Amino acid sequence: MVETNRRAENRYGNRPTMKDVAARAGVGLKTVSRVVNGESGVTADTERRVQEAIEALGFRRNDSARVLRKGRTSSIGLVLEDLADPFYGPLSRAVEEVARAHGALLINGSSAEDPDREQELALALCARRVDGLVIIPAGDDHRYLEPELRAGVATVFVDRPAGGIDADVVLSDNYGGSYTGTAHLIAHGHRRIGFIGDQVGIHTAAERLRGYQAAMEDAGLPVHESWVSSGDTHPERVRKAAESMLTGSEPVTALFAGNNRVTVTAVRVLAGPGHHAALVGFDDFELADLLSPAVTVVAQDSAQIGRTAAERLFRRLGGTPLEAERIELPVRLIARGSGELPPAG
Amino acid sequence: MVETNRRAENRYGNRPTMKDVAARAGVGLKTVSRVVNGESGVTADTERRVQEAIEALGFRRNDSARVLRKGRTSSIGLVLEDLADPFYGPLSRAVEEVARAHGALLINGSSAEDPDREQELALALCARRVDGLVIIPAGDDHRYLEPELRAGVATVFVDRPAGGIDADVVLSDNYGGSYTGTAHLIAHGHRRIGFIGDQVGIHTAAERLRGYQAAMEDAGLPVHESWVSSGDTHPERVRKAAESMLTGSEPVTALFAGNNRVTVTAVRVLAGPGHHAALVGFDDFELADLLSPAVTVVAQDSAQIGRTAAERLFRRLGGTPLEAERIELPVRLIARGSGELPPAG
Repeated sequence: MVETNRRAENRYGNRPTMKDVAARAGVGLKTVSRVVNGESGVTADTERRVQEAIEALGFRRNDSARVLRKGRTSSIGLVLEDLADPFYGPLSRAVEEVARAHGALLINGSSAEDPDREQELALALCARRVDGLVIIPAGDDHRYLEPELRAGVATVFVDRPAGGIDADVVLSDNYGGSYTGTAHLIAHGHRRIGFIGDQVGIHTAAERLRGYQAAMEDAGLPVHESWVSSGDTHPERVRKAAESMLTGSEPVTALFAGNNRVTVTAVRVLAGPGHHAALVGFDDFELADLLSPAVTVVAQDSAQIGRTAAERLFRRLGGTPLEAERIELPVRLIARGSGELPPAG
Repeated sequence: MVETNRRAENRYGNRPTMKDVAARAGVGLKTVSRVVNGESGVTADTERRVQEAIEALGFRRNDSARVLRKGRTSSIGLVLEDLADPFYGPLSRAVEEVARAHGALLINGSSAEDPDREQELALALCARRVDGLVIIPAGDDHRYLEPELRAGVATVFVDRPAGGIDADVVLSDNYGGSYTGTAHLIAHGHRRIGFIGDQVGIHTAAERLRGYQAAMEDAGLPVHESWVSSGDTHPERVRKAAESMLTGSEPVTALFAGNNRVTVTAVRVLAGPGHHAALVGFDDFELADLLSPAVTVVAQDSAQIGRTAAERLFRRLGGTPLEAERIELPVRLIARGSGELPPAG
């Protein structure tokens, strides 16, 4: 019964799309889009046919009329991956601001890095009638979303691509950023550089590792197997990895930290006695510039990522026909001191 | 129609309560609670009567049976106040962990400090059939929740008390923490101490200001009106306030920062040239110990606040009869350097 009610209430499932309008009017999608958005380039006769199809089907470009009539607020869902990671603060806020600008509420939840939890949460949000989802995926198989997608729920992935389904993804240039950060250390004289990253099953982490490896290879530098450590980002794991790289038989003179959680622990290790190494971290973080030395980072614009994803989602919800796309945003190296230290000894 | 469906689906609205069981069995609430929780102190005859009433009414202590039967997951909502404030990261995660331990999903949203938005969001979450709400309120009138409370939605407020309704609130000892932090600066020789806080309409901010004023008064120190600045926590506002206190005709030798957003900006001002002052901040924050000087703070345990609130919520959802209560958690001064600097000059 619940399912039935939900379907009846689904805002986009049984709703006529631009495609339906185009078919009925016997025109192309682009023409419908032009009429709907009041753009020029459509003859009066074509416009009339499109308008008739819109009337006949009850097509609506956006929800405002429906929301006002029903006295309900539209909403979108955001599936995060870790509520306590500061990377997601500005991202969530940006998604929320876009949602608000569209008169919609944002409802969040966190998968806590657990693929089952991600699925449970995404489906629970759908069952609660969100119109669309922005997902930072924990898992790599998203076929569980297929019925929801068919029912009209719009979806945009962030930070990591969807698996098994065709969906938008908005993410940073992880490979390029990691390459640039590693090359920066090489340019400052480092030959033995360690990489500490998140679990390689995570797309972002794999891309960043690949960037590090490519930069080393392009510089003709070998990568000793003890110089690469992938795993969870718990401080104890990262601390051990860093200490072992700094004191092993082939000690590194520089560290590249694969994300902000790793960087913060690396900063703590390097602030302790007896450890000297240059450091570049992926992700900027608060107060990085006031530490001593200030921390050189490859900065992602997490607010811009959130904004881009949310705007894409609302374009889909507004009925704009879009192919699934991969949108990669540039990153930026910010040199502050820690990444410009020369090799010790 | 939507409303009707929602009511029919409301998990707690039409559900028999312990009170119903007590009335039917002709016993007190406490007795029902004892039977339900398997505690001793109930005669066999009374227990049988209570059990009969439970059977007859279909009362259930918790949802697991119902959730399994219906194949749906229960959920609770969390209304935050600013998604990008790191204070809420550990708090949200703690609420989520408690929810998960109870087999429930957590759904978040943010009011972005706007009372209207808070109301819209809280009601939207209720309309999406959350079983209970943890609210960090932006507004001070919560009578809009009365119909939901009557319908059985459990509610616990966090950080700031509810207005106009009787509800639990879990918060830190804001007054005491601020008093202690200010007294700490006085003990280190400061006589002219500035206070920069959040807007006084916010309960937390008002309590912290009161603690500062009381500590000054108890030490026989005057408070010059130019030493107190309340307002939003945007960096520009805080920077101007700090600079004006540090350079005015009655310059302060120490600053007390009313929350972590203020402290971070104060750290930036004091790191600039020409400004020397001691600093104590309310709220701990990441890397505070690695700054130079390391920052002395009055630390709240935001995870403990979240956990306490969520556990209270699930006790209510489990049917335990509870009076609305104010639960105040202790704070802790962590001396790290910035708060122990002597007065300059």
